[in-house]
Amino acid sequence: MKKVGKSTFKFESCPIISDCFTIVGKKEGEGPLGIFFDMVIEDEYAGQKSWELAEGKILNIAISKLIQKSGFPPDEVDLILSGDLLNQLTSSHFATRDLDIPFIGLYGACSTFALSVGLACVFVDGGFAKNVIAATSSHFCSAEKQFRYPLELGCQRPPTAQWTVTGAASFLIKPEDGTQKPKITHITVGKILDYGIKDPNNMGACMAPAAFDTITTHLEDTKRDFTYYDIIVTGDLGYVGRKLLEELFKKEGKTLPFELFDCGILMFDQKTQDTGAGASGCAASACVFGGYFYKLMLQKTFKRILIVPTGALLSSSTVQLGESIPVIAHALSIEIE
Amino acid sequence: MKKVGKSTFKFESCPIISDCFTIVGKKEGEGPLGIFFDMVIEDEYAGQKSWELAEGKILNIAISKLIQKSGFPPDEVDLILSGDLLNQLTSSHFATRDLDIPFIGLYGACSTFALSVGLACVFVDGGFAKNVIAATSSHFCSAEKQFRYPLELGCQRPPTAQWTVTGAASFLIKPEDGTQKPKITHITVGKILDYGIKDPNNMGACMAPAAFDTITTHLEDTKRDFTYYDIIVTGDLGYVGRKLLEELFKKEGKTLPFELFDCGILMFDQKTQDTGAGASGCAASACVFGGYFYKLMLQKTFKRILIVPTGALLSSSTVQLGESIPVIAHALSIEIE
Repeated sequence: MKKVGKSTFKFESCPIISDCFTIVGKKEGEGPLGIFFDMVIEDEYAGQKSWELAEGKILNIAISKLIQKSGFPPDEVDLILSGDLLNQLTSSHFATRDLDIPFIGLYGACSTFALSVGLACVFVDGGFAKNVIAATSSHFCSAEKQFRYPLELGCQRPPTAQWTVTGAASFLIKPEDGTQKPKITHITVGKILDYGIKDPNNMGACMAPAAFDTITTHLEDTKRDFTYYDIIVTGDLGYVGRKLLEELFKKEGKTLPFELFDCGILMFDQKTQDTGAGASGCAASACVFGGYFYKLMLQKTFKRILIVPTGALLSSSTVQLGESIPVIAHALSIEIE
Repeated sequence: MKKVGKSTFKFESCPIISDCFTIVGKKEGEGPLGIFFDMVIEDEYAGQKSWELAEGKILNIAISKLIQKSGFPPDEVDLILSGDLLNQLTSSHFATRDLDIPFIGLYGACSTFALSVGLACVFVDGGFAKNVIAATSSHFCSAEKQFRYPLELGCQRPPTAQWTVTGAASFLIKPEDGTQKPKITHITVGKILDYGIKDPNNMGACMAPAAFDTITTHLEDTKRDFTYYDIIVTGDLGYVGRKLLEELFKKEGKTLPFELFDCGILMFDQKTQDTGAGASGCAASACVFGGYFYKLMLQKTFKRILIVPTGALLSSSTVQLGESIPVIAHALSIEIE
């Protein structure tokens, strides 16, 4: 394992994503990718008395079901790395407080999927661990309540607003074992950037420059160009952010050789589901990758993917203070032979 | 590098804490350890217009001064790992948005010091990085505003309440280089625990069982007993939590062979500074270790320290929901020859 270029860490042992589990809410289950998720829950409360507890419950299901699927006892899980959008990672802590497994809490907003999987690889590639679970969650109701307005107010959503995904995903990261599973070869760790955007209802515009910076840095660090990858998938830029990202590339004279996929666009059917500028939330890239692209990689439809989850690091207090929104994007290079 | 026992990761290359920088507020500067900190700021706003921006500024100073002290240019810093108490890590993001250095955000409440230093060691020991900065901050005013009551209300503080430290600390983690610097030999990663305590004004009672669990696990994993260490230093249990921790050990028939040090007790003079049950906040253990114990290790007063920062993972929303407070504690084993 070594550092490559300015911001990229190369995993020389190429840890694998051995398995994953995705769970989503009713609306996500009705979307174009609905059939790909492992579980769809009808009740947005997941049988709990609050949205925060519901999100914790959903994440707990994602982690517990993955452990069940893996076939080994919970005490063979070396480590859980998890993060979510709620203040002080409420959902991750609620989800894991009965599991008796060492825990590391991460915050990267909607980029958390790449951060948790990437750090799991650092542990596995460094020889520290054999079974690491990387997980994340988000919930439409808990996120809207915390970051914007109480849902009960029925505030009109501007057309740039994105729809937070209700869901959770967990990934089992293991050392390469000869099985045909997607391998993680690199993580490019993003920098905190801030382009002065203050509108919490326009996350796409906030995050597009972070995606641009991380993709550009990744390609420079690895001395690759776009053609190395079958596809590049961005986290949850949505329709607004993806268009801006294409414009940023055009400005540099670079034309993408393929359609740029975005998890924020793929999750919902914009025309029938009234989801504005697309999906967002930690679960957006995590569930779209785990539910959809992971399976396409197993089928060898895509053999080399660069996935670039993006995070708008806003908080209600920074919004109230009139501060601009810092952003970050991390990239994972994932391949299958 | 390898895993030892259930929860402990051993760093076979023993990364060093090459240097550190501590900065505290006026009250902390007037405390018994005041002379040990690198910088004391008189203005609780640090020249900013809000407490959140002030905390970000203080953390930015801690990181920037450490880079200056190190003598190498900022672009040789491979990675910054940072976390704080504010919603969505506001302080860490504000502190680093102009630094152009890859960033990983962590959340472990007041245990963040151990988490950021420990993960920095995972990167260094795994061969990924040569200069990693681990940092954390807290601010009395931003924390009280966020977690409890607006300061302007002048609410009476119960005797179990702890006083959040205004300060920040940064640590430069490097591969062992033959210099006489404290080496990090192990991290024991804590589990999320929840003992049903709901009082946000009694963090010591919340966190004591987490410290007990992590210390016990560390000693089991490493097959050591208390006598291996010159001292064991807990994070910020304060007077209430430390007493409870001693009782937990007594219940198991174990008597501590030395006075148990606690960063929450050492930071302030309880009698003259009106700080209730002691100090708390991410900066408590980070500044007490960086300012005080790190120097004592360089002088060989102590050669083997187990430091166990503890975190109460409360949020204002979990408190409002009437939920109990999950807790965690991570332990770092630090030695100098």
